[in-house]
Amino acid sequence: MNVQALTQRAGEWLRGSGPHSEIVLSSRIRLARNLAGFPFVNRASRRQRLEVLERCRGEIMSGRLAGDIIWVDLNEADDLDRQLLVERHLISRQHAQGGGDQPRAVAIAADETFAIMANEEDHLRMQVLRSGLQLEEAWDQISHIDDVLEERLDFAYSSRWGYLSACPTNVGTGVRVSVMMHLPALKLTGEIEKVRRAARDTHLAVRGFFGEGSDALGDLFQISNQTTLGKSEEEILHGFLENIVPQIIAYEQQARQALIKHRAALLDDRIWRAWAILTHARVIGTDEVMSLLSHLRLGVNLGRLDCVDIRTLNELFLLSQSAHLQRITACEMDQAARREARARMIRHKLGAK
Amino acid sequence: MNVQALTQRAGEWLRGSGPHSEIVLSSRIRLARNLAGFPFVNRASRRQRLEVLERCRGEIMSGRLAGDIIWVDLNEADDLDRQLLVERHLISRQHAQGGGDQPRAVAIAADETFAIMANEEDHLRMQVLRSGLQLEEAWDQISHIDDVLEERLDFAYSSRWGYLSACPTNVGTGVRVSVMMHLPALKLTGEIEKVRRAARDTHLAVRGFFGEGSDALGDLFQISNQTTLGKSEEEILHGFLENIVPQIIAYEQQARQALIKHRAALLDDRIWRAWAILTHARVIGTDEVMSLLSHLRLGVNLGRLDCVDIRTLNELFLLSQSAHLQRITACEMDQAARREARARMIRHKLGAK
Repeated sequence: MNVQALTQRAGEWLRGSGPHSEIVLSSRIRLARNLAGFPFVNRASRRQRLEVLERCRGEIMSGRLAGDIIWVDLNEADDLDRQLLVERHLISRQHAQGGGDQPRAVAIAADETFAIMANEEDHLRMQVLRSGLQLEEAWDQISHIDDVLEERLDFAYSSRWGYLSACPTNVGTGVRVSVMMHLPALKLTGEIEKVRRAARDTHLAVRGFFGEGSDALGDLFQISNQTTLGKSEEEILHGFLENIVPQIIAYEQQARQALIKHRAALLDDRIWRAWAILTHARVIGTDEVMSLLSHLRLGVNLGRLDCVDIRTLNELFLLSQSAHLQRITACEMDQAARREARARMIRHKLGAK
Repeated sequence: MNVQALTQRAGEWLRGSGPHSEIVLSSRIRLARNLAGFPFVNRASRRQRLEVLERCRGEIMSGRLAGDIIWVDLNEADDLDRQLLVERHLISRQHAQGGGDQPRAVAIAADETFAIMANEEDHLRMQVLRSGLQLEEAWDQISHIDDVLEERLDFAYSSRWGYLSACPTNVGTGVRVSVMMHLPALKLTGEIEKVRRAARDTHLAVRGFFGEGSDALGDLFQISNQTTLGKSEEEILHGFLENIVPQIIAYEQQARQALIKHRAALLDDRIWRAWAILTHARVIGTDEVMSLLSHLRLGVNLGRLDCVDIRTLNELFLLSQSAHLQRITACEMDQAARREARARMIRHKLGAK
């Protein structure tokens, strides 16, 4: 099984199901771990990095973790495959670039419920990704993975600081919890700024679809905790589950109902224009696709349009990205050619001419 | 027959036929005339204006001009009817406003090939309007009208200056010749600026769809002579027919072929997006409609889209304007309601849901 096999379908987290999936696209939990006795990645020699990589690979691929796992050596992978993994949220942009030919890899569960980056900023960064609001399930799964690996790997730990990490914001539990939320109504009404302020006040980060520094393409907002020191995993999880996420869900639902009540024509106009353009455009860029898919997603979730389902929209979110587009059409293209191929692919998937 | 009867169909000039109608929307010739022995309109008393109006009405409605003619007293007409006549290019905006309740009128041929404004800036401003490039036919028709009226009306004329007019640019022949050209390819490639410069150098004016001060909505440019003194009617007409108009037609055709050859995908994208939006929008304003209709018109003329004909597009140009929209739907609406009704009407006319 190789990276390209992934393009045949969307990962579990884009299934479009799970609790509150009309607003919560996915839940993600990430743990940062480092092997005791080795310098952090940015201080390690090439030999040390190779040794860390081999140890991690041995444990991850030992068969003690359930399910099929793909090991991808990112130095051997080509640019397009690395970009494809970024587009699928399986590795970070930093890990894709990875300072030239430094030894680095990623282990990916075939169903994409988890991925473990080796030699990113930390020796190991494991993530579990699930569709809808499933933080507790994600927590159970990542704890299990952590436990299995810790049986035979010695993780750097200080009784005072907790798990050590190359990045200060990860010291402590090393847990980063995030949910990807679709907030088109709050965006449309401008109330998204209230969410941003509330998030800042409770030390949460609000980022775009591709994390730090990315715009909120497609009205998708990633909300995550900023620090992991001084709080237990349970406190972090419960803060998300009992306060923050339900509150934002309620805001968004109110904003959606207000749109239906007071600006129905405008709402339907957005939704139907999105459908019209996606089924007729001959040239289209990624950002526009994301924005139009967002309006369609809102339309489907509010029952105002029924010619497409959420699963197809989620799939298009992925397939419209440049690397995916080039892999499924099996040719490398310049930007102009991609914009045409993207429009063609979308028309085809939506059943238009 | 009243003004509202006009909304049932488009006038002759929007038939979409005639020579070069793929680029020349319509040809118009206007003559300015004043009755001898009366002050110009802006100097005349109310009584004098009424007398001018009655004399003109007597001659115009005498039956000596062929065909059905409608006489519209613009003081008695309501705002919506006056606006409707402006939208149909049968009266000027100035004549619609007309300084409150000043006596003024317009005589309109039922087929809309000609219209005669009484008490606009001059006592009489007659225009002939035909679809496509038909300046000679228009000239024959307006000369005939002028001759018939001059048999019994004494027009102010000076052997030195020619026909006198309240506006210096109309003194002399009093002829204003203009053609409405659809130049989307020159607009798209930016070459329209060359046309503007060339026009300025030959003392022509380039204006928008609604004349002076209006933007080139829908990529429609009205090209007309600036002065009428010192040139015979024949010189003005021939300048248009032999130099200016054929040259601009050739430019536009070259630009269209270049688009097909080098930017076909972009061209088709514009055309299909226009079709998509017009058949799906739920809320839409006049300017956007004009711009989208322009792209569709280009698509039909280049044979790249065949789900609509030019006559329907021309009709939509008119029916999308605010006064027309309110007359055909038989209700007066605020702007928000008009934007919804306009989208509904267009979807209906284009056979969409």
